[in-house]
Amino acid sequence: MSERASIDFSGFSCPTSDGSAERIVLGHGGGGLLSGELIERIFLPAFGNPVLERLGDSAVLEELPGRLACSTDSFVVRPLFFPGGSIGELAVNGTVNDLAMSGAVTRFLTAGFILEEGLPIVDLERITAAMAAAAAAAGVRVVAGDTKVVERGHGDGVYINTTGIGVVPEGVDLDAGRIEPGDAVVLSGTLADHGMAVMSLREGLGFEAEIASDTAALHGLVVEMLAAVDGIRLLRDPTRGGVATSLNEIASLASAARRAAGREPVGIEIDDAAVPVAPAVASACELLGLDPLLVANEGKLLAIVAGDEAGRLLEAMRSRPEGRNAAVIGRVTRRPAGKVTARTPIGGSRVVPLPVGEQLPRIC
Amino acid sequence: MSERASIDFSGFSCPTSDGSAERIVLGHGGGGLLSGELIERIFLPAFGNPVLERLGDSAVLEELPGRLACSTDSFVVRPLFFPGGSIGELAVNGTVNDLAMSGAVTRFLTAGFILEEGLPIVDLERITAAMAAAAAAAGVRVVAGDTKVVERGHGDGVYINTTGIGVVPEGVDLDAGRIEPGDAVVLSGTLADHGMAVMSLREGLGFEAEIASDTAALHGLVVEMLAAVDGIRLLRDPTRGGVATSLNEIASLASAARRAAGREPVGIEIDDAAVPVAPAVASACELLGLDPLLVANEGKLLAIVAGDEAGRLLEAMRSRPEGRNAAVIGRVTRRPAGKVTARTPIGGSRVVPLPVGEQLPRIC
Repeated sequence: MSERASIDFSGFSCPTSDGSAERIVLGHGGGGLLSGELIERIFLPAFGNPVLERLGDSAVLEELPGRLACSTDSFVVRPLFFPGGSIGELAVNGTVNDLAMSGAVTRFLTAGFILEEGLPIVDLERITAAMAAAAAAAGVRVVAGDTKVVERGHGDGVYINTTGIGVVPEGVDLDAGRIEPGDAVVLSGTLADHGMAVMSLREGLGFEAEIASDTAALHGLVVEMLAAVDGIRLLRDPTRGGVATSLNEIASLASAARRAAGREPVGIEIDDAAVPVAPAVASACELLGLDPLLVANEGKLLAIVAGDEAGRLLEAMRSRPEGRNAAVIGRVTRRPAGKVTARTPIGGSRVVPLPVGEQLPRIC
Repeated sequence: MSERASIDFSGFSCPTSDGSAERIVLGHGGGGLLSGELIERIFLPAFGNPVLERLGDSAVLEELPGRLACSTDSFVVRPLFFPGGSIGELAVNGTVNDLAMSGAVTRFLTAGFILEEGLPIVDLERITAAMAAAAAAAGVRVVAGDTKVVERGHGDGVYINTTGIGVVPEGVDLDAGRIEPGDAVVLSGTLADHGMAVMSLREGLGFEAEIASDTAALHGLVVEMLAAVDGIRLLRDPTRGGVATSLNEIASLASAARRAAGREPVGIEIDDAAVPVAPAVASACELLGLDPLLVANEGKLLAIVAGDEAGRLLEAMRSRPEGRNAAVIGRVTRRPAGKVTARTPIGGSRVVPLPVGEQLPRIC
């Protein structure tokens, strides 16, 4: 302590490593030597690129010509690892997908970590490796980061925020106001895989071998879709709250935009029988009494497209692995305005409401 | 439950509001009605602007001509409110300042909230109001946001991540490799105000009336400084780990950059007596046995500037309130290479080390 005689640590939490350095301690968030060690040992090897390696307070990037887009998302999924992925893949793909829903291609990603004291460093290594692989697959560079550490009992291992910065290509203009009665509602694949993978593990349902998260980046699929047809009105990725939430938001946004332009509002009708759900996922949902329409997806998108272009769009989507099970699941209707309804297999009709709260907490 | 007969909530946490809606419940993070209520009631009134009001998965922005810069930071300060500010001001000013240290002017900000179940909604309102006021003062728009809710005991009220996107003006080229022996080390004002404001409150020292956080946006000061002189080499804001950490980083970055160019490394020498510290802050530091050089600041910057331009720079800085106590606190030396030393008032010299861990956990 000779060089630091003026510092008295009594009364503060021990800031130093336990020697083995195999768990996160508060000092890893202090901005000092231990923080530097974490950056050198974990973050730079995983994400290393010339921008990040400059280690400035901020990242200076090149010029991005065109309209910028940005999106931010925090990830608090529990548990951190699940069949098909981890919080790491979610954190990258989730933000890449949010940007893709604007037609934007993500170029840069920032990553903010809130670590809980006691986290095994090997877990952090697995997570950053998963993020790095997902970022490489999506053609995205992690250009800035931050790490904070909170005391045991004030976190849950790792929370991650990612913010993406991308560019919207010339000519792309997705807008709820362009939605018309007769438009088709297209879903890119099977529903509820992510939510049920996490829930099966959490509740010990024994479906772990059969159900894997669908986490995937969808920007490539979106590029393909926008190139194939002109009539795509809007894209959404049905994550938290599932397809039911996204469709309610679409119906409500479209109706508001149309009303503002002096036009009639619209509703959405889906066909329960047309919604693709994998058999194991359907069984797990039934066991837990969950509606697959309300369960989170992490690698699927909804597209509203001009009715006469739906066939061409499906063909383009099915040419890619992320869209191989794409299907038309419904259409835009004149009424009931602003609402979503579903035709049931026995010929009835039910309202698909916007859920009140959270059916499955901490799912992403 | 008639419309949602297929959903069985048994076994899940109660997702609905308690009726008074005065505390955060898990459902506020679910993406459904309660999430929407939070957006309508809290976030849009605080941050409302046309981009945010589109409520898309991502924000589509205008073109930003010039080199982009971005920075991300998570805030986990405890307690949430302290003399001089709250986590809200920190979250905005901290990121604006990180960008300002690259010479960048922040244009857009994203905000990701991780709320703990049970947080009084009135606290969230105070925090978002503080963020909105800080953003307005800094000329920054909040263009995208996200809210997650974690169970009681897995957070600490509110954690906030902000990511800033800005533009670096033409001609600005801050670079540690341009640092030369003889350069002056300039500090923009008194040290340790933020850290000691939080610690005084946390430890019940009774200095609350006298010490307030210095949280402030520094981009205006930086614009003034860059306009006043050409010889600014590098800027840093000494937050976590304080001036000691920032100066060690500067010495190390400058030495590495100079070595890479085949030149001699450099050190930094500061003069203890020249470092401005407010009397109450000095007393609080003494009481806790803390070195003010290690305590966090949230509205101060360090500049390395050509020695013969230091006078002109000080004059420009003192013309603004954020820089009125600016002072030259040291200089760049030839040795000891890569290290920071301090001349003591009695004529001795001590090494100012990079701290190992966190002296004051959860300070920002």
